[in-house]
Amino acid sequence: MVDHGGSLGRARGLFPHAPQPFVDLSTGINPHSYPFFELPATALSRLPEAARVRDLADVAASVYGAPSAANVAAAPGTQILLPCVASLASPGKALVLGPTYAEHQRAAAIAGHAVTEVDDFEVLAGADLAIVVNPNNPDGRIVGRERLLELAGKLHARGGLLVVDEAFMDVGPLGESLAGVVDRGGIVVLRSFGKFFGLAGLRLGFAIADALTVERLEAQFGPWAVAGPALEYGIRALGDTGWQVEMRRRLAGDTARLDALFGRFGVAVAGGTTLFRYIRLADAAGLFSALGERGILLRHFSGRPDVLRAGLPGEGEEWQRLESALADWAQQRDGY
Amino acid sequence: MVDHGGSLGRARGLFPHAPQPFVDLSTGINPHSYPFFELPATALSRLPEAARVRDLADVAASVYGAPSAANVAAAPGTQILLPCVASLASPGKALVLGPTYAEHQRAAAIAGHAVTEVDDFEVLAGADLAIVVNPNNPDGRIVGRERLLELAGKLHARGGLLVVDEAFMDVGPLGESLAGVVDRGGIVVLRSFGKFFGLAGLRLGFAIADALTVERLEAQFGPWAVAGPALEYGIRALGDTGWQVEMRRRLAGDTARLDALFGRFGVAVAGGTTLFRYIRLADAAGLFSALGERGILLRHFSGRPDVLRAGLPGEGEEWQRLESALADWAQQRDGY
Repeated sequence: MVDHGGSLGRARGLFPHAPQPFVDLSTGINPHSYPFFELPATALSRLPEAARVRDLADVAASVYGAPSAANVAAAPGTQILLPCVASLASPGKALVLGPTYAEHQRAAAIAGHAVTEVDDFEVLAGADLAIVVNPNNPDGRIVGRERLLELAGKLHARGGLLVVDEAFMDVGPLGESLAGVVDRGGIVVLRSFGKFFGLAGLRLGFAIADALTVERLEAQFGPWAVAGPALEYGIRALGDTGWQVEMRRRLAGDTARLDALFGRFGVAVAGGTTLFRYIRLADAAGLFSALGERGILLRHFSGRPDVLRAGLPGEGEEWQRLESALADWAQQRDGY
Repeated sequence: MVDHGGSLGRARGLFPHAPQPFVDLSTGINPHSYPFFELPATALSRLPEAARVRDLADVAASVYGAPSAANVAAAPGTQILLPCVASLASPGKALVLGPTYAEHQRAAAIAGHAVTEVDDFEVLAGADLAIVVNPNNPDGRIVGRERLLELAGKLHARGGLLVVDEAFMDVGPLGESLAGVVDRGGIVVLRSFGKFFGLAGLRLGFAIADALTVERLEAQFGPWAVAGPALEYGIRALGDTGWQVEMRRRLAGDTARLDALFGRFGVAVAGGTTLFRYIRLADAAGLFSALGERGILLRHFSGRPDVLRAGLPGEGEEWQRLESALADWAQQRDGY
């Protein structure tokens, strides 16, 4: 099993004496959820309507900059798409640009590939299936669009496939997205709904690709792949561009505040996106534990002892608890 | 594409002048939905918790009679399970006992099988993958548990797989379910949440199998396969056995009433379950159209001109509209 952030059950196991509720900064999910609204009863009771799925694909194509709705396959979360997308390439050599989100390696292996994580972008050109998370999770590294297009061209010429997981691309840089050029073939772009909109429980994700590939994925999932609640929230929230613009601004402000807060206690932020921050620190494990015992959950990664990821606090009280936990930790560290 | 019931968009295209809203009897979904309740905000905003998924598997195992929670894989609807389950058998000869739900043939083909629909149960023993819908949709035919076990034994001895789709088994006969014996291997039982509980929009279904097969399916779907709303409704509704007992009684009453209503107009019901009725009638197409034009949707099947399926009306007004539409049709038929 791959270890993940976002599990309060796991947190309670690790820090049984921590004050609750936890301040969960272990994910990159926006703490400012899109406003809740009352769902029509039919969203629960009836099978999702094909026309509603088309509405969702329309608005997703528009927001993500895909050529058309025919280039968009909606799915119950991006996660469940991963093995299906990896299966679009015949079993061969899969290379994942890492370190990154661990589920890509697992999914490519399920699809029958021999999978290796590589840290050199140039090496990806030798793959049958190349996977790049852009911006990358957890360090926020961005691969420029031109480099990706060149790679996609090389792979496609040999029948290979480039998968670009743009799960955090909603917070930019939007100009680097490959969603607009999937018609040339050999490219699948993944987009996640739940992270930016703070609605991860709904399970909604998208594969953006040439129309034939989209048909193939939709055939695999069959009708009614997306639940009624996800359809309704997806259509409304993706169509609300005003909220999106304002939220990008708000998240940028939150991020600056979070960086300043960490900075005050001598913790330098080394990267990330405006949905999560990437921290390198010799005693990352110590900071993780000190905060965890005070009910503040960061994300640490097995096998990377000097790395932490921190999501954004939500309400004011969460900021205060983080600040006071950091102050306690710094005081202990500095031997007061 | 496979044609399905339950699409109001399609109904509006077929019967543009029908009075709306439609009385939708084109599915086998319970019109008496499990009572709605307010979801905790975290069911939408947070990633589903592993502990909650275990709660769901626990209660599902108990209600369906599976040996344990380790025999239950939850998924976002049964539909999305079909190609995955068909892929559990190496590509070979898939035989589907028909006529039945058309998606099984399509899913087995996607999984690489050569698929044939057969009407003789005995022939299934020659398959690598045999699929039986029990009770069958649309005719309600039931294959006894002993015959299925014998078939499963034969298939398993040769490395084959028996899939029993018990999508409508909630309304019985419960004693014929194979959910309790999946530990012997070579059997996958499918159960649907949305039909009996009238919550098809939530997308929740289960595969019940030996623990290793369940692990394989769960690995394919990854964490967070089931959305928060489906988890919360699933746990509550499956745990509410009082509602289930009472609902079975209510549906049996509704079914008797529906059969009597059709009977009054000379339409004999030839089978079905208490969630849908199966009608054979020389002029099935005429009845379908006459009712459709009056805003009552039955289900007809392409290539089967003498067959109709009718779901249950919900509120009193729906019964009245059905009765009056049937009266109009009978009057025209009898040349008054």
